[in-house]
Amino acid sequence: MIYFNSDYLEGAHPRILARLAETNLIQTPGYGEDEYCERARGIIRELCEAPEADVHFLVGGTQVNATVLTAALRPYQGVVSADTGHIAVHETGAVEARGHKVLALSGHDGKIDAGQVSELCRLHHGDESHEHMVMPGALYLSSPTELGTLYSREELEAFRAVCDRWNLILYLDGARLGYGLASPQNTLDLPFLARVCDAFTIGGTKQGLLFGEALVVNSAALKRDFRYFIKQGGGMLAKGRLLGVQFEEMLKDGLYTQLSEHAIREALRLKDALAGLGVPFLVDSPTNQQFPILPDAVLNMLRKHYGYATIQRVDAGHVAVRFCTSWATVPAHVDGLIADLRQLLG
Amino acid sequence: MIYFNSDYLEGAHPRILARLAETNLIQTPGYGEDEYCERARGIIRELCEAPEADVHFLVGGTQVNATVLTAALRPYQGVVSADTGHIAVHETGAVEARGHKVLALSGHDGKIDAGQVSELCRLHHGDESHEHMVMPGALYLSSPTELGTLYSREELEAFRAVCDRWNLILYLDGARLGYGLASPQNTLDLPFLARVCDAFTIGGTKQGLLFGEALVVNSAALKRDFRYFIKQGGGMLAKGRLLGVQFEEMLKDGLYTQLSEHAIREALRLKDALAGLGVPFLVDSPTNQQFPILPDAVLNMLRKHYGYATIQRVDAGHVAVRFCTSWATVPAHVDGLIADLRQLLG
Amino acid sequence: MIYFNSDYLEGAHPRILARLAETNLIQTPGYGEDEYCERARGIIRELCEAPEADVHFLVGGTQVNATVLTAALRPYQGVVSADTGHIAVHETGAVEARGHKVLALSGHDGKIDAGQVSELCRLHHGDESHEHMVMPGALYLSSPTELGTLYSREELEAFRAVCDRWNLILYLDGARLGYGLASPQNTLDLPFLARVCDAFTIGGTKQGLLFGEALVVNSAALKRDFRYFIKQGGGMLAKGRLLGVQFEEMLKDGLYTQLSEHAIREALRLKDALAGLGVPFLVDSPTNQQFPILPDAVLNMLRKHYGYATIQRVDAGHVAVRFCTSWATVPAHVDGLIADLRQLLG
Amino acid sequence: MIYFNSDYLEGAHPRILARLAETNLIQTPGYGEDEYCERARGIIRELCEAPEADVHFLVGGTQVNATVLTAALRPYQGVVSADTGHIAVHETGAVEARGHKVLALSGHDGKIDAGQVSELCRLHHGDESHEHMVMPGALYLSSPTELGTLYSREELEAFRAVCDRWNLILYLDGARLGYGLASPQNTLDLPFLARVCDAFTIGGTKQGLLFGEALVVNSAALKRDFRYFIKQGGGMLAKGRLLGVQFEEMLKDGLYTQLSEHAIREALRLKDALAGLGVPFLVDSPTNQQFPILPDAVLNMLRKHYGYATIQRVDAGHVAVRFCTSWATVPAHVDGLIADLRQLLG
Repeated sequence: MIYFNSDYLEGAHPRILARLAETNLIQTPGYGEDEYCERARGIIRELCEAPEADVHFLVGGTQVNATVLTAALRPYQGVVSADTGHIAVHETGAVEARGHKVLALSGHDGKIDAGQVSELCRLHHGDESHEHMVMPGALYLSSPTELGTLYSREELEAFRAVCDRWNLILYLDGARLGYGLASPQNTLDLPFLARVCDAFTIGGTKQGLLFGEALVVNSAALKRDFRYFIKQGGGMLAKGRLLGVQFEEMLKDGLYTQLSEHAIREALRLKDALAGLGVPFLVDSPTNQQFPILPDAVLNMLRKHYGYATIQRVDAGHVAVRFCTSWATVPAHVDGLIADLRQLLG
Repeated sequence: MIYFNSDYLEGAHPRILARLAETNLIQTPGYGEDEYCERARGIIRELCEAPEADVHFLVGGTQVNATVLTAALRPYQGVVSADTGHIAVHETGAVEARGHKVLALSGHDGKIDAGQVSELCRLHHGDESHEHMVMPGALYLSSPTELGTLYSREELEAFRAVCDRWNLILYLDGARLGYGLASPQNTLDLPFLARVCDAFTIGGTKQGLLFGEALVVNSAALKRDFRYFIKQGGGMLAKGRLLGVQFEEMLKDGLYTQLSEHAIREALRLKDALAGLGVPFLVDSPTNQQFPILPDAVLNMLRKHYGYATIQRVDAGHVAVRFCTSWATVPAHVDGLIADLRQLLG
Repeated sequence: MIYFNSDYLEGAHPRILARLAETNLIQTPGYGEDEYCERARGIIRELCEAPEADVHFLVGGTQVNATVLTAALRPYQGVVSADTGHIAVHETGAVEARGHKVLALSGHDGKIDAGQVSELCRLHHGDESHEHMVMPGALYLSSPTELGTLYSREELEAFRAVCDRWNLILYLDGARLGYGLASPQNTLDLPFLARVCDAFTIGGTKQGLLFGEALVVNSAALKRDFRYFIKQGGGMLAKGRLLGVQFEEMLKDGLYTQLSEHAIREALRLKDALAGLGVPFLVDSPTNQQFPILPDAVLNMLRKHYGYATIQRVDAGHVAVRFCTSWATVPAHVDGLIADLRQLLG
Repeated sequence: MIYFNSDYLEGAHPRILARLAETNLIQTPGYGEDEYCERARGIIRELCEAPEADVHFLVGGTQVNATVLTAALRPYQGVVSADTGHIAVHETGAVEARGHKVLALSGHDGKIDAGQVSELCRLHHGDESHEHMVMPGALYLSSPTELGTLYSREELEAFRAVCDRWNLILYLDGARLGYGLASPQNTLDLPFLARVCDAFTIGGTKQGLLFGEALVVNSAALKRDFRYFIKQGGGMLAKGRLLGVQFEEMLKDGLYTQLSEHAIREALRLKDALAGLGVPFLVDSPTNQQFPILPDAVLNMLRKHYGYATIQRVDAGHVAVRFCTSWATVPAHVDGLIADLRQLLG
């Protein structure tokens, strides 16, 4: 069996493991106050051209999302999100568990637009009984989105303007940020994100680390006492060095970019082959998640040798599925998959 | 100016005030453990034909909703509601502030149906990563709804079946319950509600009391330690007797029914008059809230003499508004309003 | 039976009820935006010599405490309190339910001192792993305390200095404030409280209203969006006018002071009589709560005719109890109690 | 510099790293549903002689404590703990942030006794206004405690009886459990813990893993839907296999015991040497944390070459400090420390 179910099926890139082994018995202080974390922070600040940014390392995505939003929102505020946003659907209500409503807007291919956010804020503040309703206090975006799509530079600038107008914290979840940056459709870069977002993450878990998300915080309000939030949320790793070591290794000489490009290359090879076979897609994704719509008969054969995620039934005979590539994808496996699909669909 | 903005514009029915004065200097224990509360509980159990029910008195609707749902839900569960439900829109995220997601379903005229709830539960429990999503744990209904519409006996029985199937607490918010029971379209009664709901309220605030909601709890799980929830939620009135005295007076000889019928009579007079003038309605409401769609020009004149609530713009020249009648509505005021509308619309 | 168990055994002073009746059928907007509330706010601002203060009216003490502290604290902060403080003991963890630790300091006769608070803050901020601990973010005081004792002007000034030094919100719970102000030991007044506290309450429930606490907010940070907190906490009364009407009547011409003085006079008569009989006290209280230590045999007789609260067993033969006077205490009842105690103890 | 500050200064035992490398590129499902986790669960169930136990793996201690207690407590309940308990002091109020009060009991050398817990419960349930107070709902114990001391079999049985009597969940935090089991004073074993506790942890982070705590859940009530709690709390590691791989390697052939014994041997060598030099201790600890009280002059010299944790000033010239040994302690470093202490104290 070969699995394309997700981008967290394997451990870490071998260089990451090697570096962990190399530094293993060196004694360091705990909780992220070691020299490895310090150096990794320095690299991230440089890559972002943001010498004043605070950088924190957390283990996982749900944790970092919940921690940032807990810090960003006052008790009566909620966070605006696409209805397909990870916080709206797949984090077991972690945001609500910390007291805040997710104000879900209807998305298109995983995306919302600045006009929708603006309208929501305008309606809220224009209502004479606004204090009876949750005030929008932050905007959650993911890019790539949960459906593989990307926000453009222009779109993010428009969100920024809305957030400035209505006093919202702009937070971008970059769990798959590298795959977005490596896409041919990409128009973003780290310095731009550091300017436009109050906070954003550079995901490691899905990009070649054992685990870890780097959080870049630019707004002064969010920086305040942030380590208290991490500790209270259960996100302060005792051996914080493990995150510093991994991020330093991944970012110091472009390994992150290189692995991201690999995943995108393999994803687009698969996409092109499927399109060539006349297969329609649920979403036109330019990143490492591909959502072809395949006949039941084909899937019945395919699942004997390949793992993938089932997304939704499209009609009586077809199902939309998800294939993920990643830093670890073996090109020969994609070759094999394409060959098998050709045969099944031919 | 005459106001039809809401059903809580005045104080209380004079008999309520008189009874409060009569009992004023009698010494009683606090926190609802007095003889007035005890008697009011007895009356409610009798009216509900539910000798085993627990009855609690709380001051207001947001408070009682949040308190019941805090008791009903485990931390990873959410409450299913129409997207127009009061808890979904107009309680400043009180449910989320206590840790729970409101799972909003798209409503029709303020109502949802059992099929929608069933489908939501089926999807949740059928999903292999269901633990990444909020589990439906309770169903919130209001009847009359926020748009004045009513659930029928058959509809509630269907909800009950779904709740049994998927292990949901069924809670009905009866803030305007009396107005529903007094409607010509009503098919419910208190004993039926006590059988079909795990908990429901008999609202007092909008029905002739100074304030107060009576909560009837039938399910054993919800009964457990409920007074701790009330106290923690800030809902335990020191002079709990005030609630007992008011509910006893209102319910002991049918005053509640009589006042409800009055409000419905006046509302339907207004509705019929409007319909007779060819005015369309946002919702066909059989209760004390009426939602006519009126031309801007008419409203510009009307607002000089009458208060009403603005609901939404319907088109370039028309706005849907809300007129409420209540226990306190003066028939001559409705006469005047009808006459003025005739002139303006004629 | 005559009850001295608490100061909320009766309804309200007759003038309060009369004023409610008088205004009963006047139509007003809801949620505290009516003219009665506005006038009551004006009176309070004047009495406090604080024209810039925000004034909110809430129904009960647990509700107002929880609401203020939710607004005052960031998620990782806790509130400092005497270990006998109402929020620390008798509110079913309402503060914790909203996410915050009560940092309890060992009290003396219900009081703490500024040195204790200062030391706690110094230790916290001096600890190198301070982010692993709850940061003190607010100070909760009650005056009179739960044991009837009072803070002096000098003590409050010292607390203010500590709060300024360590950036704590100073909140004073004045559930029985009037009884404190009427005590011969009092050194405070409303303008002083409005200057020294970020927020404080003027309690109504225990002082002659049916219910209600007036919250005076002086700090700009606390004022921000405060009505959202009230609504979310379930504390926004639909017929908010009921609070405005009551507070206006109580405060407009000194009724509040007059009733407070009455209660203190009766309490001190009882205290002096007990002291004259050689009865020791658990606490030397100068206000309306008196805590004599009485022999079991005496209590066995007394409880046939009088209600009181049992506080704690002091030794094999003695129990500390609480007698409360109030605005409603009948002097002849105190006479009778004193006579009976004389006979039992003589 | 040689550091004895804590037991999480290094990475992991080399066998752990080797095993992670060996399994690195094998594809597995995420979120702990892989074969490594499954096998590690099997080993733990066997070691505990608890075939019915549920076993979950979480990354860190604060996270597992908060997650278990969120599942164990109803909203109005609190958790009983020694005032030195980790949840009471060093988790930034994570328990309160999830809504629950920590009911702190005064400890002796880090321990409390069953009588104290019993008395607290008796007082709560005996109080007629018990619903105004937080109900004890769980008992948190750590063994070894934060001060290195141990609970005995008899003590745990007494706690169990109290928990049965008052319906409390008994949870034991075993962050350093191995060091406790390896102590000469130990009277516990895993099967006993699995019988007596509703839940307990077998800590990995401080015992030779990169990170990870294994949670053993025995009570049916706690088992229910537990994975929802893990996900909502941000504790569900995407690559859950990392935890399974590590625990399997550590537990399959006694490496855990062997490393624990090593740490205890080194700690007791240090303890004996210090005692031989007449050094007093803050606590008589039989485990890997030692708390000698040393003169300032000695510490001034010592800190040039050794790291340790400062606990508290004992008198004008002495400070209590903490030296930790661990699985990674180099015996020659302990030799050197002892020699240096001899010289400084001699």
